[in-house]
Amino acid sequence: MKKPLRIAMIGHQFMGRAHSNAWRQVGHFFDPPFEPVMQVICGRDAERTRAAADKLGWQEASTSWEETVRRPDIDAVDICTPGDLHGPVALAAAAAGKAVLCEKPLANNLAEAQKMLAAVRKAGVVHMLCHNYRRVPALALARELVTGGEQGESRIGRIFHFRAVYLHDRGIDPRAPRTWRHDKARAGSGALGDFGSHVIDLARFLVGEIAEVSGTLQTFIAQRTAAGEAAAQPVDVDDAALALLRFENGALGSFEVSRFGMGRKNHARIEVSGDRGAFVFNLERLNELELYVEEGPTSGFRTILATHKQHPYMASWWPPGHLIGYEHTFIHTVLDFMKGVAEGRSPTPNFEDGVRGHQVLDAIERASTSRRWERVGAAAEVR
Amino acid sequence: MKKPLRIAMIGHQFMGRAHSNAWRQVGHFFDPPFEPVMQVICGRDAERTRAAADKLGWQEASTSWEETVRRPDIDAVDICTPGDLHGPVALAAAAAGKAVLCEKPLANNLAEAQKMLAAVRKAGVVHMLCHNYRRVPALALARELVTGGEQGESRIGRIFHFRAVYLHDRGIDPRAPRTWRHDKARAGSGALGDFGSHVIDLARFLVGEIAEVSGTLQTFIAQRTAAGEAAAQPVDVDDAALALLRFENGALGSFEVSRFGMGRKNHARIEVSGDRGAFVFNLERLNELELYVEEGPTSGFRTILATHKQHPYMASWWPPGHLIGYEHTFIHTVLDFMKGVAEGRSPTPNFEDGVRGHQVLDAIERASTSRRWERVGAAAEVR
Amino acid sequence: MKKPLRIAMIGHQFMGRAHSNAWRQVGHFFDPPFEPVMQVICGRDAERTRAAADKLGWQEASTSWEETVRRPDIDAVDICTPGDLHGPVALAAAAAGKAVLCEKPLANNLAEAQKMLAAVRKAGVVHMLCHNYRRVPALALARELVTGGEQGESRIGRIFHFRAVYLHDRGIDPRAPRTWRHDKARAGSGALGDFGSHVIDLARFLVGEIAEVSGTLQTFIAQRTAAGEAAAQPVDVDDAALALLRFENGALGSFEVSRFGMGRKNHARIEVSGDRGAFVFNLERLNELELYVEEGPTSGFRTILATHKQHPYMASWWPPGHLIGYEHTFIHTVLDFMKGVAEGRSPTPNFEDGVRGHQVLDAIERASTSRRWERVGAAAEVR
Amino acid sequence: MKKPLRIAMIGHQFMGRAHSNAWRQVGHFFDPPFEPVMQVICGRDAERTRAAADKLGWQEASTSWEETVRRPDIDAVDICTPGDLHGPVALAAAAAGKAVLCEKPLANNLAEAQKMLAAVRKAGVVHMLCHNYRRVPALALARELVTGGEQGESRIGRIFHFRAVYLHDRGIDPRAPRTWRHDKARAGSGALGDFGSHVIDLARFLVGEIAEVSGTLQTFIAQRTAAGEAAAQPVDVDDAALALLRFENGALGSFEVSRFGMGRKNHARIEVSGDRGAFVFNLERLNELELYVEEGPTSGFRTILATHKQHPYMASWWPPGHLIGYEHTFIHTVLDFMKGVAEGRSPTPNFEDGVRGHQVLDAIERASTSRRWERVGAAAEVR
Repeated sequence: MKKPLRIAMIGHQFMGRAHSNAWRQVGHFFDPPFEPVMQVICGRDAERTRAAADKLGWQEASTSWEETVRRPDIDAVDICTPGDLHGPVALAAAAAGKAVLCEKPLANNLAEAQKMLAAVRKAGVVHMLCHNYRRVPALALARELVTGGEQGESRIGRIFHFRAVYLHDRGIDPRAPRTWRHDKARAGSGALGDFGSHVIDLARFLVGEIAEVSGTLQTFIAQRTAAGEAAAQPVDVDDAALALLRFENGALGSFEVSRFGMGRKNHARIEVSGDRGAFVFNLERLNELELYVEEGPTSGFRTILATHKQHPYMASWWPPGHLIGYEHTFIHTVLDFMKGVAEGRSPTPNFEDGVRGHQVLDAIERASTSRRWERVGAAAEVR
Repeated sequence: MKKPLRIAMIGHQFMGRAHSNAWRQVGHFFDPPFEPVMQVICGRDAERTRAAADKLGWQEASTSWEETVRRPDIDAVDICTPGDLHGPVALAAAAAGKAVLCEKPLANNLAEAQKMLAAVRKAGVVHMLCHNYRRVPALALARELVTGGEQGESRIGRIFHFRAVYLHDRGIDPRAPRTWRHDKARAGSGALGDFGSHVIDLARFLVGEIAEVSGTLQTFIAQRTAAGEAAAQPVDVDDAALALLRFENGALGSFEVSRFGMGRKNHARIEVSGDRGAFVFNLERLNELELYVEEGPTSGFRTILATHKQHPYMASWWPPGHLIGYEHTFIHTVLDFMKGVAEGRSPTPNFEDGVRGHQVLDAIERASTSRRWERVGAAAEVR
Repeated sequence: MKKPLRIAMIGHQFMGRAHSNAWRQVGHFFDPPFEPVMQVICGRDAERTRAAADKLGWQEASTSWEETVRRPDIDAVDICTPGDLHGPVALAAAAAGKAVLCEKPLANNLAEAQKMLAAVRKAGVVHMLCHNYRRVPALALARELVTGGEQGESRIGRIFHFRAVYLHDRGIDPRAPRTWRHDKARAGSGALGDFGSHVIDLARFLVGEIAEVSGTLQTFIAQRTAAGEAAAQPVDVDDAALALLRFENGALGSFEVSRFGMGRKNHARIEVSGDRGAFVFNLERLNELELYVEEGPTSGFRTILATHKQHPYMASWWPPGHLIGYEHTFIHTVLDFMKGVAEGRSPTPNFEDGVRGHQVLDAIERASTSRRWERVGAAAEVR
Repeated sequence: MKKPLRIAMIGHQFMGRAHSNAWRQVGHFFDPPFEPVMQVICGRDAERTRAAADKLGWQEASTSWEETVRRPDIDAVDICTPGDLHGPVALAAAAAGKAVLCEKPLANNLAEAQKMLAAVRKAGVVHMLCHNYRRVPALALARELVTGGEQGESRIGRIFHFRAVYLHDRGIDPRAPRTWRHDKARAGSGALGDFGSHVIDLARFLVGEIAEVSGTLQTFIAQRTAAGEAAAQPVDVDDAALALLRFENGALGSFEVSRFGMGRKNHARIEVSGDRGAFVFNLERLNELELYVEEGPTSGFRTILATHKQHPYMASWWPPGHLIGYEHTFIHTVLDFMKGVAEGRSPTPNFEDGVRGHQVLDAIERASTSRRWERVGAAAEVR
């Protein structure tokens, strides 16, 4: 019998559903070092939290995250709230000695992220940031191709270019309701934090650290009306953000994130190219990786269906050619989180990665204001 | 509190895993009329069945399907065995008054399928055939476009052409081991029954009944060695099957199914075209439907990402652009099976559809031998 | 100074325009062994033929092909008429000792094709059939990958499967006017001869000889009205044709050709797969070849942009990545025709290939009537 | 009989070949207002220029562009030299009263471009800049969709986003020889002028004027050896350039151009999106336009094969589905140039567009140095 790992989840909206599914499913497909126990889920509204617990498979429902994270029977806290609560919950959980898994972006700003990192370090707890796209098998494969995996020979070589877009089009309708995602106090930023944090994490995962940035933020629709309200209120976050990037290793990069990308639904396209090869990934075809390996006149971008049992995480799913979906990436994440807890180490991306990512977000926000290139905070400043 | 529906599953291999997942997951995303209870799973080997029960989430394990299907506490039997057991299990389950969900193909031959249909009809039990691809949202959407859905106006119009391939390449390696799928006694046929039954079901779903066929079967590698055995044994099923089809409504069709389709992993490509529009579906991109609607010089095949909340089944999953995977189609199937049980009707595709499909398979096998076009058995012969 | 090759072209419609362009352009991009002289173009209507000569770059216009092909100053005859004139012109040209380039299909039936082959053989003249798609660089490259080119090692290996469609949608509109292409007396057949002859030629080019066929022909719209006429007349050719193929080397094949393929404009898709690799070609993306080479978990279909200077014919065009168009394939054809004339040999595909192709067309027509598999005439019958 | 337009072409390399082909071909497919006469081609080397004249179809060869552009029998001068000669030739041609067609980029810097515009204005001659991609039918169609064409109703609506890449990979090999394109004195800049000028012209064509930019230039390989030389020399132009753009109409944009884009051969991908629709164009599939029109759950990016006779320029080519190639865009350009000459107006893009484009290039170069956003010169400064 495996030892249980008792989880408390804070938040039960979109991410709450995705993480709950991961905790339910992981043991049926993988062999994690613990038996995850979905002990308690927290929310602000008692009735809705109770309903979520029933629907999502949690034993208990609570309206007090403060009490919950301190419960002695809880081993790990999974933070799925809007960004403004990431810090308070993580600090309390760390202080209570719990392992912490936190949804991205780590915090609503760099200072808060630094505080969170300091807290988990001080407490000596395992910490992990849920940038689930690192665990899309096709992207985990891309990383292997970049590093060369066990053979150590990169299929991509010296990287010259990184480019990314992350687009959806749900902001275009001016009648789309104002939510917490349009509110800087709750969300920290708009497309930049929501999508840009993903892009930056993948840039760091696939290429390396970013040294300096130029960028701009834009709000196309200045006010919106929340559901059930009569009056419009200001949108004080960005609808779109663009940036140019210079990596420490000399590569050039750029990205564009937007809620105004007509026709795109969840379109994160990542392109990386070097002096031996290149690849393209598109989240709307997340089971595929387009790989180019330079080998003369019969070279071309090949579409790898990343469902081979030798591809990361895929031996546990279905036979080749049988697709997995969006939520599987969270299953892979909680699997690796449990491994980290078992081994007493914080799997990447962890809160350090979160701070590094916030350093880049912060530099882009500064660049948007200063209208200059801005240096990204150094590794030494991650404390 | 919902009424429970107590399930017995027979078989625990690939399909057993997929169906188990469906039973586990359906209530967390949909609102089925019953609370499904994963009561007991059956297999031949006690130890492996016990392990499967633990891994897949069943309360009990049994090595006797005969006893299991007669248990008074069981409401429904889900048949996931190789084809040779479909008939015996279904007959016993029907005789015991259980609702029956059966993996495809319904049986190993037409006569057996007829017997199964007669049995469930006589018993008056709800029956359903798990051709899960009908419940890929993109294909369910395709069907709506063909029929015109609620508006009743087809976007495709009079259909002229149906064509399909269903290919994988796992047969090409001559060292690939002989399994029950290479054994006519257990599997009924090879690529024809395994893949062709899917294609024929989709042809009937999307176009209509098939009137006559020409076809040919081929075994490229005549013998293989089973894992752990020394001597090769004959492969007495087809590695590939091709057919031409004439539909009752005048459409022309063709299909090719093969285990020798180099580079293809689970590649079911379906193309349907009429006098107003056309569509293409590819199972390796199961979240997409390519639709053409004739509207002059700016017409073109458009890629619909079938993840909109108005697309079939998708309101219960994730926001637009977030993909689902292969196993979700089984979740949709068990959902609809439970609805059928609740309403006392047998959802399509049911055993009648199974017999209609077997009539086509049978005609192709006859055509392969006679080297002539052969008529498909009439509806009147489905008894 | 190069020796001139004086050309007489018979016909000035679509194919006349394409061939004229080829004769005009070939010397500006390639180094043919002759200086082609566009001496005279023939048509039925004096005024329109004169206009065509001016527009297309011919020195003279004539309304008598009979006189033209006998002119002592003419070296080669290029036949671009509807099919019913291919035979008469070719026989007269051969009798007059002219080299003959003939548009596809060679004739309107097998018997006529046999007569034409006999005539050019007896006359000892160079003959060539314009199946221009053999000279699409991507398809010429595909052929090299099949044969292994100079290295002799096939990238495709033993071929299991060939499948092809050739579709356009210009027949769907019932008001589309009746032309010579709907008239069996002039065109020989419909989609079968027009598109099927291309597909069969490519099947032979890429896979090998076809041993036997099953097939069916279909006319969806039974009568049409010619432009400028009041009354509809019967369409006595096929709108669509489907066939199953067995090749002499054991490969299985199928094709579908149709003028009722909604949304397709000039869509010839060819798929070939073997035990080492596979490729897909689509005429609507004629600069591309999708190639699969089995090499483990990072295998995938790669898109080769067939514009590399080492790709067939491409060293003479533009830098890599600069596309060529449809008409370039005719330029490659007349180049190779001139080389044949210079060397006194008949380049493939020539009239022998034409007869072999007609043997397959003939077998499909027989199979459509007999509703049985039919054997293709043997090589020994090509006389 | 049409009036002749006697052309002198200066330069006979890559662009000389492409323009020569255009002059030869235009009258065979279109009905231009003049009979173009390919009178004389100029180059530095007598022998090679003579050979080019023969190969490309020019009546005369000359080594003095200075004398040639002043010849009284010459009506128009077509400038196909490296950038450093654009200005001197254009000034002399204008002074001699000739119509001028000039390859892009207009000049090697903004000041020179301004001088050229002043010269043609003063001389009152027709002038045109050969940004041939405006006359890719798919892109001309895109422009119609943006403006709404004759109906005046945009299919794209208010534009939010423009993004473009233009990549090839021929710079990656460090042994690739140094040419004039690596020499700032001759080429003005590297990827920025060569590819960026195209991108900026298309941005202006499809979206509107650019107000301000941020950007950076990069040289990855600092020196190269010219063919036939022993010693390497510095590369003083950019290998890659990235920019962020703010348009006057509020749209955001970005582009990346590079000679280090592994696996890309001539890959110009343009994406434009608004509040009604969006489109994507890729020069490696230049016959296609991907269009998205928002129309609810069955929306998707559709691939328009831009070969319909109602698409710009396509009525003169082949039936639908028959592709055109790279060089056809030059044929369309010289056609429109001749129309301009006939009507006494300078077709777009003309030298004014060239100066506007250089204002953007200049701002990017300034931004690369200042590391700040820079304003693009105003329309009032185009003089």
